[in-house]
Amino acid sequence: MRFVSVLFFVFAFASLVSTQETKPLALMPWPESVQLGSGQLPLSGSFTVRVRADDPRLHAVAEIFLNDLRRHTGMLPLDFQIADGARTGQLVIQSEHASEEVQKLGEDESYTLVVIPSGAHLDAPTTLGVMRGLQTFLQLVEMTPQGFAVPAVSIQDKPRFPWRGLLIDSSRHFTPLDVIKRNLDGMAAVKLNVFHWHLSDYQGFRVESKRFPKLQEMGSDGLYYTQDQLRDIVAYARDRGIRVVPEFDMPGHSTSWFVGYPELASGPGPYQIERNWGVFDPAMDPTRESTYRFLDAFVGEMAHIFPDQFFHIGGDEVNGKQWDGNPKIQEFMRAHGLKNNADLQAYFNQRLEKIVSKHGKIMEGWDEILRPDLPKTIVIQSWRGQQSLAQAAQQGYRGLLSSGYYLDLMSAARAHYQVDPFAGGVANLTDDEKKKILGGEACMWGEHVSGETIDSRIWPRLAPIAERLWSPPNVTDINSMYQRLDVISHWLDAYGLMHNTGYNLMLERIAGSDDTAALRTLVDVVEPVKGYAREGLATTPPNQLTPLNRIVDAARPESLPARRFSTLVETFLKGPIQPGMESEIRATLVEWRDNDVKLRPLAEKSAIVQEVEPLSQSLSALGSAGLQALDYLDRGEKAPKDWEQQQLAMVEQAFQPRAQVLLMVAPAVQKLIQASAGETPTNLAIPKSAQD
Amino acid sequence: MRFVSVLFFVFAFASLVSTQETKPLALMPWPESVQLGSGQLPLSGSFTVRVRADDPRLHAVAEIFLNDLRRHTGMLPLDFQIADGARTGQLVIQSEHASEEVQKLGEDESYTLVVIPSGAHLDAPTTLGVMRGLQTFLQLVEMTPQGFAVPAVSIQDKPRFPWRGLLIDSSRHFTPLDVIKRNLDGMAAVKLNVFHWHLSDYQGFRVESKRFPKLQEMGSDGLYYTQDQLRDIVAYARDRGIRVVPEFDMPGHSTSWFVGYPELASGPGPYQIERNWGVFDPAMDPTRESTYRFLDAFVGEMAHIFPDQFFHIGGDEVNGKQWDGNPKIQEFMRAHGLKNNADLQAYFNQRLEKIVSKHGKIMEGWDEILRPDLPKTIVIQSWRGQQSLAQAAQQGYRGLLSSGYYLDLMSAARAHYQVDPFAGGVANLTDDEKKKILGGEACMWGEHVSGETIDSRIWPRLAPIAERLWSPPNVTDINSMYQRLDVISHWLDAYGLMHNTGYNLMLERIAGSDDTAALRTLVDVVEPVKGYAREGLATTPPNQLTPLNRIVDAARPESLPARRFSTLVETFLKGPIQPGMESEIRATLVEWRDNDVKLRPLAEKSAIVQEVEPLSQSLSALGSAGLQALDYLDRGEKAPKDWEQQQLAMVEQAFQPRAQVLLMVAPAVQKLIQASAGETPTNLAIPKSAQD
Repeated sequence: MRFVSVLFFVFAFASLVSTQETKPLALMPWPESVQLGSGQLPLSGSFTVRVRADDPRLHAVAEIFLNDLRRHTGMLPLDFQIADGARTGQLVIQSEHASEEVQKLGEDESYTLVVIPSGAHLDAPTTLGVMRGLQTFLQLVEMTPQGFAVPAVSIQDKPRFPWRGLLIDSSRHFTPLDVIKRNLDGMAAVKLNVFHWHLSDYQGFRVESKRFPKLQEMGSDGLYYTQDQLRDIVAYARDRGIRVVPEFDMPGHSTSWFVGYPELASGPGPYQIERNWGVFDPAMDPTRESTYRFLDAFVGEMAHIFPDQFFHIGGDEVNGKQWDGNPKIQEFMRAHGLKNNADLQAYFNQRLEKIVSKHGKIMEGWDEILRPDLPKTIVIQSWRGQQSLAQAAQQGYRGLLSSGYYLDLMSAARAHYQVDPFAGGVANLTDDEKKKILGGEACMWGEHVSGETIDSRIWPRLAPIAERLWSPPNVTDINSMYQRLDVISHWLDAYGLMHNTGYNLMLERIAGSDDTAALRTLVDVVEPVKGYAREGLATTPPNQLTPLNRIVDAARPESLPARRFSTLVETFLKGPIQPGMESEIRATLVEWRDNDVKLRPLAEKSAIVQEVEPLSQSLSALGSAGLQALDYLDRGEKAPKDWEQQQLAMVEQAFQPRAQVLLMVAPAVQKLIQASAGETPTNLAIPKSAQD
Repeated sequence: MRFVSVLFFVFAFASLVSTQETKPLALMPWPESVQLGSGQLPLSGSFTVRVRADDPRLHAVAEIFLNDLRRHTGMLPLDFQIADGARTGQLVIQSEHASEEVQKLGEDESYTLVVIPSGAHLDAPTTLGVMRGLQTFLQLVEMTPQGFAVPAVSIQDKPRFPWRGLLIDSSRHFTPLDVIKRNLDGMAAVKLNVFHWHLSDYQGFRVESKRFPKLQEMGSDGLYYTQDQLRDIVAYARDRGIRVVPEFDMPGHSTSWFVGYPELASGPGPYQIERNWGVFDPAMDPTRESTYRFLDAFVGEMAHIFPDQFFHIGGDEVNGKQWDGNPKIQEFMRAHGLKNNADLQAYFNQRLEKIVSKHGKIMEGWDEILRPDLPKTIVIQSWRGQQSLAQAAQQGYRGLLSSGYYLDLMSAARAHYQVDPFAGGVANLTDDEKKKILGGEACMWGEHVSGETIDSRIWPRLAPIAERLWSPPNVTDINSMYQRLDVISHWLDAYGLMHNTGYNLMLERIAGSDDTAALRTLVDVVEPVKGYAREGLATTPPNQLTPLNRIVDAARPESLPARRFSTLVETFLKGPIQPGMESEIRATLVEWRDNDVKLRPLAEKSAIVQEVEPLSQSLSALGSAGLQALDYLDRGEKAPKDWEQQQLAMVEQAFQPRAQVLLMVAPAVQKLIQASAGETPTNLAIPKSAQD
């Protein structure tokens, strides 16, 4: 059989070519090896999958795949089927052995996918590898003149890192279950394998405890997950090859625990759920045995709900003020020779680690927990950067990178894509030390996201991060990434993710009308301010009760129209000028120049549109200035210095944040103006006030 | 208190005016009485509802309302709250008494809603009335220069008919649970109160029976609702003031029962699930006692799952062939003096009615069950029309109208809107007889709908039907209906209904690209063929396995752009000509003329787009012809006869169905051509082949 396969191969891939050069397959993450064949496998209504193993899980995986395939093609449940005994399958899937009952870190996820016009084979050592390969198959599905089809291709693939995650913070704002599920679908689509669920923080305790019911009863505003719901999510994730690692942040970031159980805290109560954002004083009391008895019982309860090997205890940002102010704690520190709060936290972590271990789990925490007195099994998640990971690795600790992957900071996909876990301090490690770097996790912190807006903060930017963590390190071409990302972004729509559809719905609501063209022209080219600037720029500091229904919430973190316009202008100015280029730039500038007049009637009716009127005027001014600059260029006449200075001042003003958003086309217009004055275009930096 | 209220009233509504004349509130169904006040009640983040009753259900209703309000405004769970003891509510809701444990036909649904700038009161005799009033409050929410607000208004309202329903056929194509739920949300939004669930037919048995498990195991392809899921839907509907009436169609329309239980049938087995559409021979054997023992046990089981007072037994379209062909049945008929198959079915119905009664239910069925030998309690649902209902009423039977409300026939909203249960044969009934007419039900038959497309077949056209059944009979202005429908259609987006968002997603999939502008220009102005024409026009007859992912499935049943263009052309031709009118017509015609060139690259890549290439060429031709006609009109020159004849032939050809869709702008272009030739424009009738 193997021999026949090989012969088949030789025949089918006689004219193999490197795919990346000839045909832009929209695969993300890009596989380790892709070779394109000729022809395609049609996906008609009689498409069947044959499962060559008795593993019932593999059957379940095939059902999920067929359902996904239906979502991508609009075919019906009866159209695509698992082949029964009599029928051969057009896609044959096979795994050498079943994957682990509880998915383990480092399980084999490799697969081989071969598609020829008469059928396809997917082989993998484990069921996990089959899942990854099926996602690749799905991404290969395309509309063709003959209907839906998959191109003939041979793919060998495996992940670069074994830990590829997404953190969702459901504490600061509660995340509805359907939102979690569709994001798990999206994660599976880009081959991520860890859902890190941040379940408690100052602002909310989101898990039902039967042992300590006041945790959710008093600490959640009624917004929490029942144990049945948690188990359902764990099972849903497992079916998609995703581990669920829960995080209960301790001893800081824990006010919500203290509302029901003030005796856990280091300061006197009573406590209320924190409504503001920031770092606050309340922290657990590490000196009382009752604290550890509580945590022992609590961790034991959670250990049953979350079967994953790892248990995240947070451990970040303890400001120590409650410890400093508590004489008993100070007395304890003296008695135990704990010189400072870091020592005290280390003591807490040691005690907690024993509890976590006792319940069969490996402890994971943020940078701050790293102290040589903890066992080498623990895992450090770094919000500080590669240098911090390198130090941990040198001391024998495993780590994963989150610094550079914070989705809430509103960075461009490009920026995240260029962050590599092996860069910076890690680059100088030995190969053995590098093996301690398990991968990375994108973080979706929850201060400014609701169930409605979270998809557009996660997607599509999570996909390039997933590629960084899965694909070979030399897959770094940014243009290729953006080209494929455009396709993948819309392709994710099939999973019910709202990053595209929700945008239109929000604009309609904001406009109070379905006539959103003018509003869309403006919002298409703005982005929320970057970093932590949103908080500083608000007239009243945002908190947990602040509505998230404004332009800054509808605007995408990265404006694709602005990116395209910038690229167009740069290519135009660099030359050689291609036909149609100038007229495209001109048409866009005219649209912007004329847009403010169209937006005004909407602004008169909507308080939220009103807020961006100044930006709309700036967009109009940018359009006019850009057109004048083009006129100078066309006439081959240098723009006068004073005109240029005036316009550059206008551009700078236009790029100032208002309504907490930035007009992202200002930098490209600046380049046009500078070029028209015969100067070398320079980059306009994001204004300081909009960085953090 | 009452006195203060009245004084308050006089003050607040001093300048009352009839709303319909001055301000287009987008309410649908339009209430019995609406009086607009001055000013508005702002809905800030601190908006609260106070529930003035101990009824826990009213609290649940308030929570659902607040959740809906959040969906319509993008506000967060913590923004809108139920007022606790200390806080006054800005909306005070009160019901005199709780509604029935199991919602009853004819329960009081009236309410009074008074909104002034400082607050709102909603009073109703029952919790059901509160639910209806809260939906009105939601529809009043609008974006204003001051943020979200509700205008000052005084509304008194009650339904015209007590039975206002939607039938969903989940047998022919299975309807996923989330689709059912979002449609229940939509139904509640337009004040419908009966979800008629068509759960079995030739093509699928969709309910889990524990007593007779082979029903779902062999009759459903695995696509059925578990009893827990059914109970969940019943509870979900009840929370929204909607009764759930299950239909199990007997003795015909029942092939799916016989796959597992062939002994129920009148002909020899074995049976397979029917894949085709139409009327088929298999029917239950009404002559065997074992049939009734089975049905007794089955109805008893279902009676517990569906608490509603009514139980629908179908009873339609028995062709009698299996009865004719079965000697034992013929012998039975002779022995019992049953002269024909109608007599035999009447015998079956009498036996079945006793079973249904025994389990505490009232039997409901289609026109065919009407025979004077059944008790007067039964309810007749008419697919035949008002005459049939009139006959039933004269015999003392209650009835409801579905004829004229079949959503699967792809009629315009206007057509459904003009169907009145009291028209036709019913108009001549006495007042007492008219009381037998309970209302009506829209029917969403399932031959050509999937979970993906069903929303766009139901919405927005269901809303005007709901208005017909709720609002006073004099609410009949079609322009007002369409104006309000435009708003309501987008307002329903908040419930996750996909009739708008799904359209774009389908076009993207069909195009294989997010660049759908040209495809959209075409599909925006086509409609699926009408009536039952789809089946006749297909090259192979469609069946249960036919994919529902083509242009005919993406196209909306009623093209709003085509309707707008027709209105524009008619107004233009009638005169007096208003500024901008001709240029708008011209711009639209230019867009159509130039669209085919833009569509061609898509057609080259997509098998599904290819299918509509001929329509695209016709649209282009219509654009050209319309522009030439305008030129003649502008020049005040009569178009030559031979040109006119040529163009009219082209228009007729353009209006022929292709790919099972119709180019709905052909009639308006015909009018332009005729006018340019100095003739009185005539209406172009839907071609015969596209009617049925």
